[in-house]
Amino acid sequence: MNGGLGPNSYAQNSSFQRGVVEVAKEKINEAVANHFDINTLLGSLNPVCVADLGCSTGPNTFISVQNIIEAIELKYISKGGNTETPKFMVFFNDQLSNDFNTLFISLPPNRQYFAAGVPGSFYGRLFPKASLHFIHSSYALQWLSNVPKEVMDEGSPAWNKGGIFYTNAPKEVEEAHATQFAKDMESFLIARAQELVIGGLLALFIPAVPDNMSKSDIFGGSELDLLGSCLMDMAKAGLTSEAKVDAFNLPGYFTSPKELKALIERNQHFNVEGMEILNSQKKYVSLRNPSMCSLFLRAALEGVIAKYFGNDIMDELFNRYTEKVAESSFLLNPDADKSIVLFVLLKKNN
Amino acid sequence: MNGGLGPNSYAQNSSFQRGVVEVAKEKINEAVANHFDINTLLGSLNPVCVADLGCSTGPNTFISVQNIIEAIELKYISKGGNTETPKFMVFFNDQLSNDFNTLFISLPPNRQYFAAGVPGSFYGRLFPKASLHFIHSSYALQWLSNVPKEVMDEGSPAWNKGGIFYTNAPKEVEEAHATQFAKDMESFLIARAQELVIGGLLALFIPAVPDNMSKSDIFGGSELDLLGSCLMDMAKAGLTSEAKVDAFNLPGYFTSPKELKALIERNQHFNVEGMEILNSQKKYVSLRNPSMCSLFLRAALEGVIAKYFGNDIMDELFNRYTEKVAESSFLLNPDADKSIVLFVLLKKNN
Repeated sequence: MNGGLGPNSYAQNSSFQRGVVEVAKEKINEAVANHFDINTLLGSLNPVCVADLGCSTGPNTFISVQNIIEAIELKYISKGGNTETPKFMVFFNDQLSNDFNTLFISLPPNRQYFAAGVPGSFYGRLFPKASLHFIHSSYALQWLSNVPKEVMDEGSPAWNKGGIFYTNAPKEVEEAHATQFAKDMESFLIARAQELVIGGLLALFIPAVPDNMSKSDIFGGSELDLLGSCLMDMAKAGLTSEAKVDAFNLPGYFTSPKELKALIERNQHFNVEGMEILNSQKKYVSLRNPSMCSLFLRAALEGVIAKYFGNDIMDELFNRYTEKVAESSFLLNPDADKSIVLFVLLKKNN
Repeated sequence: MNGGLGPNSYAQNSSFQRGVVEVAKEKINEAVANHFDINTLLGSLNPVCVADLGCSTGPNTFISVQNIIEAIELKYISKGGNTETPKFMVFFNDQLSNDFNTLFISLPPNRQYFAAGVPGSFYGRLFPKASLHFIHSSYALQWLSNVPKEVMDEGSPAWNKGGIFYTNAPKEVEEAHATQFAKDMESFLIARAQELVIGGLLALFIPAVPDNMSKSDIFGGSELDLLGSCLMDMAKAGLTSEAKVDAFNLPGYFTSPKELKALIERNQHFNVEGMEILNSQKKYVSLRNPSMCSLFLRAALEGVIAKYFGNDIMDELFNRYTEKVAESSFLLNPDADKSIVLFVLLKKNN
């Protein structure tokens, strides 16, 4: 994600993800009200420890965390807890390359919790055993731990020549991404099962696609195909090389409800308390014009693309992308967006 | 402190402080061996939670933390603890303006502990109640929470006209700094008493001056007086204004053993397990030439000075400072350095 607070930053261009956060508030409230075991958890350990994994630089993470805290406080009061409400410690996690300086400067000054930043991949262990009561992650698990090797290997049937994502590529490319997603989800759940106390909750919001959808219908994929075509155009214009584009791939994957359910059920340490498709606002209703579409994608992806292709061509790339969006039918047809957001609530059982 | 890893960064110019860290290793080993109550602490809570307050960007903080962890592991093994050594969670704290991105990137990749960054002033609460076993702070408590107001007030007898520190100023200026130090130390100890478990240790390394020393003999102060005179020269040359220099003061104070002991004894929650003057290497033996003296000071102070005077004049300021050091007798007379480092070991009693 783009750090800082400038015009291309994630902090200034994450209103779509915030739409998800707002829809999510109700889900968090229900999750805590119906599934957070307040007597057991508070009896054993004070403060209540909450983590947001893949927090980026804010402000969405602060809204999510505030929702979680208010829901737990409300439940505590409704259960007739004594007058002193519980104290909270919140851990904000993202990759080492995240702009934690911006995150910290943006922390709400009147927050009623202790705050810490935890750098590192959430596909590995981040916290001590049984140290967290509530883990939250929103719009982060669609990122793979890395691009599958075979996708960048010229000798492999999964080589993604000319593309930067799996959506407009041979089926082997998609399979390689799916395999990586399965491995990553397994690692993620193993780590979280260690970190949660028994009875602790894991609430996940994951962008996905409906079951049985052809990958050419994946809207988010179409955006990335369009961005890939801009890179290929730039290679033809001599601004980068085709070989470089061939060897580049975005480490992302959109799972489906069935696929995710099967992966979760492989882990024996969680009970599935809920899994549903959210009625979120559609992305291109909130992103009203080509420039906003481009800023949205740039805030999320510039870091990983610039690291590979260099900062010099980023303005050119996203200007070209803005033009292609304007020429495409994306904005004319809001129904083209078939993407969904899955909400999954898991409880650590033993 | 200067962030990043460049030639003027704290990370590249903290070898003197590291000298203190190396001398400190023995003190930490003794402190843990003789005073860390391993059975009580580990029985009640796992992992062992350690905090370093005023950590800056590394690498010294990583050396300190490693010393603490190894000392605790050693004690655990020597007490016949079971084969599984304790797990550690380490919290790295510094002010909000610290460069946490550089700190995180510099974390030892093979560390055997969970790491988190905690932004905020250590003169307030940073951690939940009874959540830490060992708190460490090295070369940080000489910084006040803020410059005493009266020092910058033209109408006050404590107005520090023409100076940037109290060492070459009316006695009221020093008194104002001493009063602020006393308030800050009180706040610091109140917060730490809340955060430590009963039996937990607080190990402090504090730059100071010997008892009953005239403030004109304070070596660290002479450096700052010299820097102040560079600023006044620059004001006369029109590069900044005298009024601006008049209204600027560094928020620092060098306490003495007697003064510190009295302040600590005001707090009823700690037993003083040890307090001594360290035999550390002298600063200007390790800083061998005027450029290194200048880099040392620049790494520590540029942030706070540039914030006030602007980045534009920093090169000029520290070039002038290098010249003045070359002309002065600082380097010719290592005995001129009367500064000391105090080691204080406190145990939370109730």
